Amino acid sequence: MGTSPPTAVRVALDPAFLERLTARFGDRCHHSESMLRQHGASEAHFPVYLPDAVVFAHSTQEVVELVNLCREAGVPIIPFGAGTSIEGNAAPIVGGVSVDLSEMSEILAVNGEDFDCTVQAGVRREQLNEHLRDKGLFFPIDPGANATIGGMASTRASGTNAVRYGTMREAVLNLRVVTADGRQLRTATRARKSAAGYDLTRLFVGSEGTLGIITEVTLRLHPIPEAISSAVCAFDTLGGAVDTVVQAIQYGVPLARVEILDDVQMKAVNAWSKLDYPELTTLFFEFHGSPANVAEQVETVRAIASDNGGGEFAWSNLPEERNRLWKARHEAYYAAVNLRPGAVGWATDVCVPISRLADCIGETKRDLEASAIPATILGHVGDGNFHVVFSIDPDAPEEMQEVERINARLVERALAMDGTCTGEHGIGIGKQDWLVKELGEEAVDLMRALKLALDPSNLLNPGKIFQL
Amino acid sequence: MGTSPPTAVRVALDPAFLERLTARFGDRCHHSESMLRQHGASEAHFPVYLPDAVVFAHSTQEVVELVNLCREAGVPIIPFGAGTSIEGNAAPIVGGVSVDLSEMSEILAVNGEDFDCTVQAGVRREQLNEHLRDKGLFFPIDPGANATIGGMASTRASGTNAVRYGTMREAVLNLRVVTADGRQLRTATRARKSAAGYDLTRLFVGSEGTLGIITEVTLRLHPIPEAISSAVCAFDTLGGAVDTVVQAIQYGVPLARVEILDDVQMKAVNAWSKLDYPELTTLFFEFHGSPANVAEQVETVRAIASDNGGGEFAWSNLPEERNRLWKARHEAYYAAVNLRPGAVGWATDVCVPISRLADCIGETKRDLEASAIPATILGHVGDGNFHVVFSIDPDAPEEMQEVERINARLVERALAMDGTCTGEHGIGIGKQDWLVKELGEEAVDLMRALKLALDPSNLLNPGKIFQL
Repeated sequence: MGTSPPTAVRVALDPAFLERLTARFGDRCHHSESMLRQHGASEAHFPVYLPDAVVFAHSTQEVVELVNLCREAGVPIIPFGAGTSIEGNAAPIVGGVSVDLSEMSEILAVNGEDFDCTVQAGVRREQLNEHLRDKGLFFPIDPGANATIGGMASTRASGTNAVRYGTMREAVLNLRVVTADGRQLRTATRARKSAAGYDLTRLFVGSEGTLGIITEVTLRLHPIPEAISSAVCAFDTLGGAVDTVVQAIQYGVPLARVEILDDVQMKAVNAWSKLDYPELTTLFFEFHGSPANVAEQVETVRAIASDNGGGEFAWSNLPEERNRLWKARHEAYYAAVNLRPGAVGWATDVCVPISRLADCIGETKRDLEASAIPATILGHVGDGNFHVVFSIDPDAPEEMQEVERINARLVERALAMDGTCTGEHGIGIGKQDWLVKELGEEAVDLMRALKLALDPSNLLNPGKIFQL
Repeated sequence: MGTSPPTAVRVALDPAFLERLTARFGDRCHHSESMLRQHGASEAHFPVYLPDAVVFAHSTQEVVELVNLCREAGVPIIPFGAGTSIEGNAAPIVGGVSVDLSEMSEILAVNGEDFDCTVQAGVRREQLNEHLRDKGLFFPIDPGANATIGGMASTRASGTNAVRYGTMREAVLNLRVVTADGRQLRTATRARKSAAGYDLTRLFVGSEGTLGIITEVTLRLHPIPEAISSAVCAFDTLGGAVDTVVQAIQYGVPLARVEILDDVQMKAVNAWSKLDYPELTTLFFEFHGSPANVAEQVETVRAIASDNGGGEFAWSNLPEERNRLWKARHEAYYAAVNLRPGAVGWATDVCVPISRLADCIGETKRDLEASAIPATILGHVGDGNFHVVFSIDPDAPEEMQEVERINARLVERALAMDGTCTGEHGIGIGKQDWLVKELGEEAVDLMRALKLALDPSNLLNPGKIFQL
């Protein structure tokens, strides 16, 4: 069991189909090697899988037309956003048309009083937050990369704020989706909650483009808190850091963010972001609320950290300090990969019940220490979710095998603790065997039945999540 | 368009099938008129639909066996919990076997450190909270009735705490489900979040027993807050009450509960619960947090309420006061129905974006005032969700027609505001036409495709949510 990429059969496309595509989409239909490569490579360790063509769609209606053209010709369609996914989620493994939604980047509506907005799928999360800032609102979901909202919905992304604000599962109110039969539909309304039939919104969130193509997303927003403080605290032991978080949550502290970075990750962060934090297991915190309430949260967590062997509890109300801290956190992946010059990254993530987190991280840390390959641990400790980032030599196949072995042990460990093989990266092509191990053949068969019901010819991002 | 019950064809069951059922389940297989009636009537205004038999299941394995027996004989299976649903969700409209899960009432595990628990589907919400109390935890979802957890998952129930703690959509971590082909599966793990494949948990939550039978539920729990205060405030105008809530949320006050009750509902509550509140539009609040934070929340909301024409802001830290308040709120449905002796209740609910709530309630209020039928408005104003409860004369068919007309205007109004035809009751048999109007034929066709993929013979709670 492992993460070997699937061996898939490609069929050469009918030139007449490519002509029809070009006739319809003109210079937004691309065949150049560089454009195909850009849509076939990823930031992760997978091989390059080239699509046969790339089409930049500009509207839901165009996606409908593209799906109809492809369906009539039996050609796969792979939705593409920013190309920042981690598990090969947008790789055109059997070729076909990569439909690039990044130019559908309009913010269609912001409803301040309702704390929601509607955006086209290609809007990026940083773009959205820049747009919202002077309205006193923010969108909390923040994977490391500046991903598109459509891509984030498709992989059920989350990030550093999930402990308080949830993941894309909670953030999406409504989707506009184009299905394999070329129909478009909305999955819900702007109502905050509904009991109206099957939860189509959640069916598409996390389906990695295999059930339909998301073209518009309605999102929950949140008021920018009156006060925000950040804090950093280093610990002698990993257990002390994790216990601090568990106790703070039990105490009812509404932590907005709490991130763990191990000693190796702190070293990488210091080098990459030119900082001088102690190179020990460290927690990064953020607290949201009224000024008095934030001060109380800081005091409570400072006391808990101190009881658990935490060092200096360095907190700040200054936006500059806070931005520097979270910029360093968001760059942690690149910092980790660059522990070795010329290396490529292999990122994996698991999520376990929080009572098992210290054990899961501790045992993983021992595996990493026993290996010569540089690797860091960092994670969203309030959710029980953490990442391992390996910095591997692309010219050393034995390193790939070793990482595969360590990753397998990690996932086995998480599953044995009633956790999941992926907290926020999705299954893609990297974790298909683990999905079966996690939920059983019955559950994956049910997923297959859903896929076949909605996409009987298997044209939407084929070969992802499971094999049919 | 309306809520007329479907005219469905019943087929007499093969006596040999009933014999097999009795042979397997013995005295837990019932045919008595009283038992059939108990599983065919409801607390709502729908006609009685008798099942052919009632079987009390005691384990997931027994549900598997029952599903297999029924499938082989082509007999419908209707899951039944507490029988407190509002839209005919558990009515055996074409007969068949009502599988009663109320005796599967074991709390299987409470994982305090992980803030979760696993229960059998028949556990009731009050039973669970009694069990949790001395562990410092609580389960926040509270529909009016003391429903079963399985039933609450099936209808995507919510209640008074949803503004802060979410609905069953957010509360369910994992389900054990028996599908129509007689397989059992788990939909997820105990991890707080996951990106592992399709969101099967959310597929079954709200599917009203049409896709599978939920036998076990893993739920998120929350620490009992250090401090809890409740408050009551009456308003001269409905708009002032709604504006108070919108502004409090915009201000970032983490309201735990905020309920609106109109003047008629307050009159009903006073009469039913022997209280003497002012008979004006009233907000009931609850605040959770540290003592200092709760005091700050109370002060903030008191000031906002005062700015919006609120009267005395009567708040209390005393558990007795609080319990009296929320007991009155939970009995509001019965209080409303009993505005007339011998009346039956017709409860409906909609949910709209909160910016439209004042308009939606205001226009609805005018409709109610123009009718002679007693009716109250009450709702979860922080979510944009409210109920209308009519107290109707069961012997006056013209009243039923009038309520149908008022309800139609209410739902049309909510849909025109980009709201939903049901915030928390489900579709059942009462709101099928509205579902189509809300999401369109495309979305409902997609639901039909999912249903046929998982239950090709249409045996699981047939005729609910939509017509195939």
